[in-house]
Amino acid sequence: MTSPTCYVGISELFSGTGRAGTTRTEAVQRIANAAILVRGEQIEHVGPESEVRAACPADTRFVDMQGKTAIPGFVDPHIHLVWGGDRSGEFNRRLHGAGYVEIAAEGGGIKSTVRQTRAASADALATKARKTLDTMLLHGITTIEAKSGYGLDRATELKQLDVMDQLSAAHPIEMIQTFMGAHEVPPEYAGRPGDYIDMLNQELLPEVKERGTVTYVDIFCEKNVFELEDSRKHLQAALDHGFKIRLHADELFPLGGAGLAAELGAVSADHLVHASKEHQRAMAASGTIATLLPGTSFFLRAAYADAASFQEAGCTIALSTDYNPGSSHTISQALMMALGCMKMGMTFEQAFLAVTLNAAAAIEKADTHGTLEPGKQADIVFLDTPGAMHLVYYWGVNHVSDVVKAGRRVVTDRRLITT
Amino acid sequence: MTSPTCYVGISELFSGTGRAGTTRTEAVQRIANAAILVRGEQIEHVGPESEVRAACPADTRFVDMQGKTAIPGFVDPHIHLVWGGDRSGEFNRRLHGAGYVEIAAEGGGIKSTVRQTRAASADALATKARKTLDTMLLHGITTIEAKSGYGLDRATELKQLDVMDQLSAAHPIEMIQTFMGAHEVPPEYAGRPGDYIDMLNQELLPEVKERGTVTYVDIFCEKNVFELEDSRKHLQAALDHGFKIRLHADELFPLGGAGLAAELGAVSADHLVHASKEHQRAMAASGTIATLLPGTSFFLRAAYADAASFQEAGCTIALSTDYNPGSSHTISQALMMALGCMKMGMTFEQAFLAVTLNAAAAIEKADTHGTLEPGKQADIVFLDTPGAMHLVYYWGVNHVSDVVKAGRRVVTDRRLITT
Ligand SMILES: [Zn+2]
Ligand SMILES: [Zn+2]
Repeated sequence: MTSPTCYVGISELFSGTGRAGTTRTEAVQRIANAAILVRGEQIEHVGPESEVRAACPADTRFVDMQGKTAIPGFVDPHIHLVWGGDRSGEFNRRLHGAGYVEIAAEGGGIKSTVRQTRAASADALATKARKTLDTMLLHGITTIEAKSGYGLDRATELKQLDVMDQLSAAHPIEMIQTFMGAHEVPPEYAGRPGDYIDMLNQELLPEVKERGTVTYVDIFCEKNVFELEDSRKHLQAALDHGFKIRLHADELFPLGGAGLAAELGAVSADHLVHASKEHQRAMAASGTIATLLPGTSFFLRAAYADAASFQEAGCTIALSTDYNPGSSHTISQALMMALGCMKMGMTFEQAFLAVTLNAAAAIEKADTHGTLEPGKQADIVFLDTPGAMHLVYYWGVNHVSDVVKAGRRVVTDRRLITT
Repeated sequence: MTSPTCYVGISELFSGTGRAGTTRTEAVQRIANAAILVRGEQIEHVGPESEVRAACPADTRFVDMQGKTAIPGFVDPHIHLVWGGDRSGEFNRRLHGAGYVEIAAEGGGIKSTVRQTRAASADALATKARKTLDTMLLHGITTIEAKSGYGLDRATELKQLDVMDQLSAAHPIEMIQTFMGAHEVPPEYAGRPGDYIDMLNQELLPEVKERGTVTYVDIFCEKNVFELEDSRKHLQAALDHGFKIRLHADELFPLGGAGLAAELGAVSADHLVHASKEHQRAMAASGTIATLLPGTSFFLRAAYADAASFQEAGCTIALSTDYNPGSSHTISQALMMALGCMKMGMTFEQAFLAVTLNAAAAIEKADTHGTLEPGKQADIVFLDTPGAMHLVYYWGVNHVSDVVKAGRRVVTDRRLITT
């Protein structure tokens, strides 16, 4: 058994405590002059430095963090990780006033990503996605949910999952996989979303299940894409195959995806800009996490989900970047916190819990991830700031200097440790 | 004479061209597979790599930038650099719903920064400000305008200027100094702004002028702070002493500061959220730059200045972070570009010019700074991206990997070079 490591010299330790779901300030603990004792992959002790030092065994290795702030590793529960191409030019066309139809006519939009993801080799996709994971890790993200969904055909969806398997084995970031064949209706099934869902249900779900690496099935439940009945059919088939489910729901139109999520017991429903109060209450009752994606609202210049309303309804709120090439090309959970605070009425503590403990809950990892508490996995981020509040107060700067994932140092002094 | 350096292997060179003031897309040049020849402190040649290589003398040193993007160093023309204390706690009080009056009663607000800046030693202020400058440089800012204004008494205002002198001599970032004794009415002059202005005019302006290091005088021209007549008196005195002038104008209330700026020939008027169309036109006629500060609007959850309206009026638009402890605690000009694009209706090219060429114009440096063109100072930022568009498209991430200031490499591979 290896000797434990004790991180000392922490100016402030800031973490959620206890169970997910809360949005109360008191559910956050803040310890000045703290230390964290890590043994193997787990946290053994946290507290004031003198107290933790007293509990350290003789063979403890001490690491002086020189006044840094410690927080739990960020969890991002909604990531479109693997895709080909570059849509920055299309993005500027939008700034120049081009509309959706115009951009589609120019060969842009999600269909262009599908085209480029189909055309790309698995190696090329992996190289690009690995760089994204590296950037995420340098920004303090230690666990993500990652979706397929830019293939929309058997070969490419499986190629995306292959890349995820490969990166999952090789990269320090922990990855929970989601199959999202129903991200969009592919050109081959234009006007026939039901036929595409039937194909997914009959041909792909069984094959994906057999891989053993995919936990969730997700669908873009939206007007004129996959409406409620197609969504229900696909999600029910997923449940029948033994998957857990999650939904892109009520982003652009109040279709009722949030209600469907609650009805089917989805782990998370995401976006939710137009979710009704009734459906918010249903989500609270079913324990479905409300994963809000303010980066998408910012990037699309659209409305934001009303965090206060979800809190009032009793929902647990997570925040995610929704990293993807079209509607939210960022990986910064710190900026999502800033948007949560500035645009959605969240307090700092609420936003903090939404990217740590509650984000872990959105991928059913709250028992082991998302806080700095004894018994939890040692996923620790050190910030080069005098306190955690600087994550939002000193916005637009990546303050992460060191990252520990499952007890192992993976970022030191803003550099990836390559082993 | 030292040998020239040629930066090659640049995937995309993106820069404004010609004179400041334009907001036209065509005023931006984009060269694929580019190179930049630098001799001493200046750019000697830019263009396609083959063309530049052909023009390189025999003793040229070649540096392969391995596919990075090259842009001009960012200029930030509105920075409150030197101050003491930390107001992150007050920031979270605001998120919890505390109002201005409540925070002031708790000892917060600008008065707390004044108190802490007065109490701090010059060394402590310099240490803190140097860290800020380091962070700015790592984010691609190579030139700033820096203001005093958190002393509001003779000794502390001069202490702030001393710190600026010291950092100006020691730090790679080029600093243009502004005296802003009239940032707020100090407690000693509560209710007597006119008396304070008289004191500044009679006692401080001559002493500040004698230092020889201060270019501008700035004032917070705002209802219930320094209104139009006090502002006019101070700015006229500044002009009489041989300073150039700039204003914080029409941020919270349409008082008419923009009109005063135009009337007195100010180099820049800043904020301008409530500037009237008439005053915008007057600014265009007087050549007063409109320096817009979207970070402040974001941070205060307030209205944004209407960039399109200033463009239509014929104004030159610059963007700045307004870095300060109360209303905009960020140093990211890339994020200001994102806010310009997303919240103020700017195109990528307009936002880009606003943080480079036009920002240089806001401190009268457009002839020598702000573009990558022969004869200009070699202030070059290299981005680890396939193109400049990623500055906004891939937002929330600092893409700057290498910085050259006045011909000298000061950041390599995301690290400051300490000499
Ligand atoms: Zn999504
Ligand atoms: Zn200011």
